[in-house]
Amino acid sequence: MTDRIADKALARLRRIEGQIRGIQRMLTEERYCVDILTQTSAVVAALHGVEDLVMVNHLNTCVAEAMQSDDPGGKAEKVDEVMNAIAKFRKHG
Amino acid sequence: MTDRIADKALARLRRIEGQIRGIQRMLTEERYCVDILTQTSAVVAALHGVEDLVMVNHLNTCVAEAMQSDDPGGKAEKVDEVMNAIAKFRKHG
Amino acid sequence: MTDRIADKALARLRRIEGQIRGIQRMLTEERYCVDILTQTSAVVAALHGVEDLVMVNHLNTCVAEAMQSDDPGGKAEKVDEVMNAIAKFRKHG
Amino acid sequence: MTDRIADKALARLRRIEGQIRGIQRMLTEERYCVDILTQTSAVVAALHGVEDLVMVNHLNTCVAEAMQSDDPGGKAEKVDEVMNAIAKFRKHG
Repeated sequence: MTDRIADKALARLRRIEGQIRGIQRMLTEERYCVDILTQTSAVVAALHGVEDLVMVNHLNTCVAEAMQSDDPGGKAEKVDEVMNAIAKFRKHG
Repeated sequence: MTDRIADKALARLRRIEGQIRGIQRMLTEERYCVDILTQTSAVVAALHGVEDLVMVNHLNTCVAEAMQSDDPGGKAEKVDEVMNAIAKFRKHG
Repeated sequence: MTDRIADKALARLRRIEGQIRGIQRMLTEERYCVDILTQTSAVVAALHGVEDLVMVNHLNTCVAEAMQSDDPGGKAEKVDEVMNAIAKFRKHG
Repeated sequence: MTDRIADKALARLRRIEGQIRGIQRMLTEERYCVDILTQTSAVVAALHGVEDLVMVNHLNTCVAEAMQSDDPGGKAEKVDEVMNAIAKFRKHG
């Protein structure tokens, strides 16, 4: 992964870590359920942002290399990986 | 929220916090993109578990109370809240 | 289900049926993959609209009745049904 | 798109068309809301199957070609297309 993308992903994950602690505080302070759901939903959206960074990097590096190579098996493997990732995105949001 | 549900949600959020730190480590160790996506996906699934706990609690308490009351406006408000939460679940997984 | 909601849902499902036939045409006309995905995605969004109509109706009728009744089993059953529907929304979009 | 994939996608879309008509019948027969939601959810899952066929084809043809070419702009364009498709999958299931 390029350093720039890894740094961006790391910065977002640190912010997400803070958001997770914020939700813990909301629970101990007995905040309204719907406000808690708004926060969990914001964290999921932020995790999607990290996933997108990782996925773009994957397409631009590993997938691109496999497609440029002469190995049809390697190409098929990368297409499978991308489809598996999409299946996970769908299943777990 | 009942203490039992809040405790369960808190325990899960602490585990999620650890998982988020694990993904940060994976990034600094330059682990394979697809393995990182598997972990982010596991965190999203775990967050859904927390959301379900909060949602069940909300249905059993606030929504149930509003539906038992004679106030049609309060009932409509709770139905709106549930539908808004579902819209967020769909949008942000 | 109230007639008004059923009529609205029926009208949308007829439009969705037309959209599905449109996607079949796009396939036989060998249209661009990405344009086909834009259309399937529009159909899924339209199906969510139908699901929301059905869900609002369910909350306002069956769930409301169960919560107003004195039967705790009936109440728990409806909460389970709502959570199962949410799980399906998440899994299958 | 290869004929084999297009035929498979067409066969599935015809079945989906039948399922949509089935849901219309369920509405006119005033069937239970939750049973209707089970059916809409099955249609969404079936549409994901069609999307996966189209996406695999897209990766194996257009995306692979762009990545094998010497045009960095074409490569970036395909990566953007894949990410836009993923964003739609997430948003609309």
